[in-house]
Amino acid sequence: MIATTQQNMTTDLDMHASTGPPRNWKGIAIAMVVIVGVLSLVILSVIMLTPENEVALRTREGHVLSYSLHSNLTATLLDNSSLDLTTTKFHVSADKRFVLLAYNIQPVFSQSFTASYAIYNVANGDLLELNSPAGEKTGIQYAAWGPQGNQLAYVFEGDIYYQPAMTSKPLRLTSTGREGLVVNGLSDWMYEEEVLLTYSAHWWSKDGARLAYFTINNSATPLMEIHYFLGGVYPSNVFFPYPKAGSTIPTVSLFVVNLYGPAHTLEMIPPDSLRARDSYISMVKWISSTRLVVRWLNRAQNQSELCVCEATTGACSEQEVPLFSSDGSWFYLTLPAKQGARGEFRHIASLPAQPAIPSVPPRFLTSGNWDVTVLCALDEDNGKIYFLSTEESRQSRHLYSVDLEGIFHRQCLTCYLLEGCSFFKAEFSPNQTYFTLYCLGPGVPKVTVHSTKDPSRYVVLEDNTPLSEALYGKRLPETVFKTLTADNHDLHLKLSMPQRYEAKLLPLLIIVDGVPGSQSVTEEFAMGWPEVLASTHDVALAWVDGRNGVGWGQKISSVDPRKLSSLRVKDQLGVVEWLMQLPYIDDRRIALYGKAFGGYLSLKMLAATDQLFKCAVAVAPITDFKLYSAAFSERYLGPPAKEEHTYLMASVLEDVHKLKDENFLLLHGTADARVHFQHSAELLSRLVKVEANYSLQLYPDEGHTLREQRSIQHFQQTLVHYLQTCLKHNPLLASIEEQDEDEEDN
Amino acid sequence: MIATTQQNMTTDLDMHASTGPPRNWKGIAIAMVVIVGVLSLVILSVIMLTPENEVALRTREGHVLSYSLHSNLTATLLDNSSLDLTTTKFHVSADKRFVLLAYNIQPVFSQSFTASYAIYNVANGDLLELNSPAGEKTGIQYAAWGPQGNQLAYVFEGDIYYQPAMTSKPLRLTSTGREGLVVNGLSDWMYEEEVLLTYSAHWWSKDGARLAYFTINNSATPLMEIHYFLGGVYPSNVFFPYPKAGSTIPTVSLFVVNLYGPAHTLEMIPPDSLRARDSYISMVKWISSTRLVVRWLNRAQNQSELCVCEATTGACSEQEVPLFSSDGSWFYLTLPAKQGARGEFRHIASLPAQPAIPSVPPRFLTSGNWDVTVLCALDEDNGKIYFLSTEESRQSRHLYSVDLEGIFHRQCLTCYLLEGCSFFKAEFSPNQTYFTLYCLGPGVPKVTVHSTKDPSRYVVLEDNTPLSEALYGKRLPETVFKTLTADNHDLHLKLSMPQRYEAKLLPLLIIVDGVPGSQSVTEEFAMGWPEVLASTHDVALAWVDGRNGVGWGQKISSVDPRKLSSLRVKDQLGVVEWLMQLPYIDDRRIALYGKAFGGYLSLKMLAATDQLFKCAVAVAPITDFKLYSAAFSERYLGPPAKEEHTYLMASVLEDVHKLKDENFLLLHGTADARVHFQHSAELLSRLVKVEANYSLQLYPDEGHTLREQRSIQHFQQTLVHYLQTCLKHNPLLASIEEQDEDEEDN
Repeated sequence: MIATTQQNMTTDLDMHASTGPPRNWKGIAIAMVVIVGVLSLVILSVIMLTPENEVALRTREGHVLSYSLHSNLTATLLDNSSLDLTTTKFHVSADKRFVLLAYNIQPVFSQSFTASYAIYNVANGDLLELNSPAGEKTGIQYAAWGPQGNQLAYVFEGDIYYQPAMTSKPLRLTSTGREGLVVNGLSDWMYEEEVLLTYSAHWWSKDGARLAYFTINNSATPLMEIHYFLGGVYPSNVFFPYPKAGSTIPTVSLFVVNLYGPAHTLEMIPPDSLRARDSYISMVKWISSTRLVVRWLNRAQNQSELCVCEATTGACSEQEVPLFSSDGSWFYLTLPAKQGARGEFRHIASLPAQPAIPSVPPRFLTSGNWDVTVLCALDEDNGKIYFLSTEESRQSRHLYSVDLEGIFHRQCLTCYLLEGCSFFKAEFSPNQTYFTLYCLGPGVPKVTVHSTKDPSRYVVLEDNTPLSEALYGKRLPETVFKTLTADNHDLHLKLSMPQRYEAKLLPLLIIVDGVPGSQSVTEEFAMGWPEVLASTHDVALAWVDGRNGVGWGQKISSVDPRKLSSLRVKDQLGVVEWLMQLPYIDDRRIALYGKAFGGYLSLKMLAATDQLFKCAVAVAPITDFKLYSAAFSERYLGPPAKEEHTYLMASVLEDVHKLKDENFLLLHGTADARVHFQHSAELLSRLVKVEANYSLQLYPDEGHTLREQRSIQHFQQTLVHYLQTCLKHNPLLASIEEQDEDEEDN
Repeated sequence: MIATTQQNMTTDLDMHASTGPPRNWKGIAIAMVVIVGVLSLVILSVIMLTPENEVALRTREGHVLSYSLHSNLTATLLDNSSLDLTTTKFHVSADKRFVLLAYNIQPVFSQSFTASYAIYNVANGDLLELNSPAGEKTGIQYAAWGPQGNQLAYVFEGDIYYQPAMTSKPLRLTSTGREGLVVNGLSDWMYEEEVLLTYSAHWWSKDGARLAYFTINNSATPLMEIHYFLGGVYPSNVFFPYPKAGSTIPTVSLFVVNLYGPAHTLEMIPPDSLRARDSYISMVKWISSTRLVVRWLNRAQNQSELCVCEATTGACSEQEVPLFSSDGSWFYLTLPAKQGARGEFRHIASLPAQPAIPSVPPRFLTSGNWDVTVLCALDEDNGKIYFLSTEESRQSRHLYSVDLEGIFHRQCLTCYLLEGCSFFKAEFSPNQTYFTLYCLGPGVPKVTVHSTKDPSRYVVLEDNTPLSEALYGKRLPETVFKTLTADNHDLHLKLSMPQRYEAKLLPLLIIVDGVPGSQSVTEEFAMGWPEVLASTHDVALAWVDGRNGVGWGQKISSVDPRKLSSLRVKDQLGVVEWLMQLPYIDDRRIALYGKAFGGYLSLKMLAATDQLFKCAVAVAPITDFKLYSAAFSERYLGPPAKEEHTYLMASVLEDVHKLKDENFLLLHGTADARVHFQHSAELLSRLVKVEANYSLQLYPDEGHTLREQRSIQHFQQTLVHYLQTCLKHNPLLASIEEQDEDEEDN
């Protein structure tokens, strides 16, 4: 049933390996201390400035600098003497005359935060508070520069305010804001976490003349309450709109306001098919100074309407497919295209922009058994598109260019460019003169800026030397990628193994993610508790990609989304079966780990098997999709009122009797705003009834992502200890392993 | 430092032991099933009716009967055919013409409940809903008959309504009720749990002519919020006034309303010293048809003012001491009296009622090194007072009578009266013709009704035959009482040991209670998870009484209440030291168990020692008295604003680093209204920081007392499993014990 193809050979995580000494078999195990706190990874945030040849960045020490790529000269925009800048966010104005600083930052959800704002005047060193229109120091929800001069927009009490320049008086652009219920220009929980995935929900046209923004109205959305227990005599609480499956979702409207001349606001009219119906807007993008593309989705999220909207009239005309734009006459975009027997892959296509001639078929610029994952930039002067793709391998991301005309000549810009780097993210300067490369793995991450004309000319902005030094000589795990074929589709697999694994009999931890559309089998660098487990405790690690991952080559529509969980459980269990037959894997010592949806899948896998797994760890698991976000649950399972049976079958709560004799650890933050503690409470209540065999760990007042350093440490140590103990259970093996460890520790 | 006096010899729990076969050494261990559900103990609720010679009771099957003690005839007032009466509460009217039934009972706090009410007409079998004044079926908070005919009072929306007879229209007695904030005639959380200890807060005069009632105003009290997670798409919540230490407490006023003739209400005026200051009323009692005694307490609870109030004028005159009354001219009460070197014991005293002659010294009717624990009844016709005391032994409660005059001849009414019974509760009929005896141990409990003239003439109303049968032939633990002396005071100790303990080396579980004023070293019958642990898993059990227990003979005022915890910890640890030297106790296997204040003490004991205890279980522990009830915390520790250091020292949270290497299990219901889940959350948050070694079990939506049968079972099994595993750790011992068990199971 399952066939195997070894795709890549062993890839050593140690980036010194190819040029340095032979592999360090007897290296030192990675200690927990390497992964916590002091030596943590830095991925610099680099901002390309106009003019083209400068970037702004913040150093490890907290100075904000501008760096000239022409002259190699550095200018200090702001030093860290006046403020503790390591805990601030900064934003340099387009004319580099001001730096906007956010401080006292308190995270809210995964992207959003509250902060105080100040503006630093580069010329005279003055630091001014950015106060609310009423002159208060607090209450500004978000502030950012526009693309021209030092125009500034900020959100206060749910309304957007605009200053044409730092010295101008603020102009109020909206007046519908109502605290916690109606917000302009920012995401609510759902848009931030499930739809747009950004906190900001306003978009400047490139010339700074227009601002598009969302008005999100949650007046009819049910409120979720989160309880906070710590620090007060009485507990406190926070309410926020959180539409659960089947509940009222917020209404969203897209407006464009004219900023030059008298302010003039127009609503972009949704397509007829979605007017007066529940809908989402999942994408907004300016394609010229007066036109935007907007993607509307129906509530069921099975129909997407891509429209081009005229900002001057509000009229939106429907497009058939997603798109990307240059000057406005043609769209470049990625489209699924059938590639022989291997299924469909996403490739770059161009289409005329005039909606009047929709019958022209798309012209494909790329093809092959790989995916274009991101369109980075269009350089019309040189007739090229820059993009990231999986052409080199499914788990890599290299930057390529392709010609817009002729034979569509394609070139890899990053292949063999940087040692230890095959998984990139790229950002281009406005005129495509330079690009920033974020090398995310497999070696220790680094950030570089390259000339587009000659990518081999580059400057290193950050190379995480302290981390590289800390890892030098360490016994790093080895990574192997595999592809299995089952049921007419491929399953991709990443294994991280302790050194000399071929000669050992290893316990195995499967790290389950499986959120539809996600890909965990990549060459991205990782150094966390799983790597400690592999290096110090000789545990093999496996990641498996579910169906419909990026770089997957399978049509989404071919899978009934209601079979979301059952198919994924089947896939994962197929892989487990194959893994168990590897000569170096001990099939009696296999554990699972998963968080949120992954926690859900782990529990489902436990329930579907009978003590196949020695133990499992579920962090903040979704236990019932009825209790989870409407935008997610309904996308895959449909409306709960209609799909009662589907929800029932998908729930873990119904499987609880099958969990009775399984061993697992449940962890949850009590203030989790994404997967509410309610999920675990419902599960616990049923586990109590069947007298199941589980362990529990709570993190009071912590959210979906732990924030307190102490909680994070405790979490990591709890995991390592639990998994190590569970995977070491066999007393015969245990004694042998202990001997090994004693030897190695000496 | 600690000397021992063996007070009682081995007392066999098996009540057949003295007459039956020799002790059943090889009996069967008590299985968990004996203690859960089916065979549960029944303590009948018996109501003495007027006329004197009848009682009303509900049988196991749910029938409500009246039983004539004269004729031995039984009349059915209500059979269980029309309603499932096993889940109802019943109340027979004074004239026996009606039965008030409460059904759909939903417990709220420990005493209070919501219910629907119906009235059954005994004559014609009609069943009428008791509706609200507006005719609604729901919303009645409490209803009960008065002492005459079928007069009835009920509370609806915080106000009291009165019906002179079943057929009368309801008369509204109060109009200040405000939902959840102001209530008349009922307790709020604090009065129910910490001050009055009853739900009802109204008192009928014996002739039914007047009703005294509380008005409790919580308008300024902070609200506590309890979160409920289960069953809904969104969690729900409940708010209720709960004054934590230092917070605003409710105001309480006592009113008396005249029921015969035009309703006329008067407030009873608090003593000058407490007027316009925070205060509590802890006792209300009618002493004649127009006078009541009322005990006011200041907020610090170190001054008590006992007053006699004239219901006709509201004037209250202060009395110096607590009291108990006959016709009103003399008070009988218990007072501490010095008994030689052994300290003070509570004895019966009489005082003249006229406040005009307060200088008369009390005349003591009893004396000796024992306490009068309850005054039951005053029989002036026969010149006797009936009372319960510890004269026979500190851990027993026998019923005695003493003459009011002469040499104060004293007689034990229950000594050697009933087999297996030495711990009694007694209730007398209004004219003292009969008394109901609740035999609570050491044998299986029973309920009997006796003639006061000849107590040996009695009727058995309930003897828990099914439970006795289930326990027959079982290997019951043996109980031993000890008294240790340390630091000039006695420490009392109860040990429950598996049979043949002298020949064994037993692990020990210490069950810690230690709430000031409580006594856990008694002969009360118990059959729960501790007894299973002793019988099935060969664990010795120990209970230790803290200072100031009932039957203690120590002056409360001699101990600084702020040393509440440190002295108690010291006492308990002294006892542990002594226990460890017993030849049959394995000093390496000692565990602790405690709930609420006991959970607090257990954690304090863990923190005060270094791995002396193998493990501990803390159920809903108080972790910081700042977070606990004002009425309790301030009574012992004073106001938190003044006594910051005392609160800090008393808190477990400050000791958390000392708990780091101790093993313990923490259990808490998330909806606990008494010790809020907040206590555990604060503790968990700190345990996470120090990476302590603990286990956690939550009961979602459960309160301080578990209600769901499945939760109770899970709780018991979790405890037995955790303690058995922890106490069995020694691998050498473990193998021997396992052999033993195998033998015994066959």
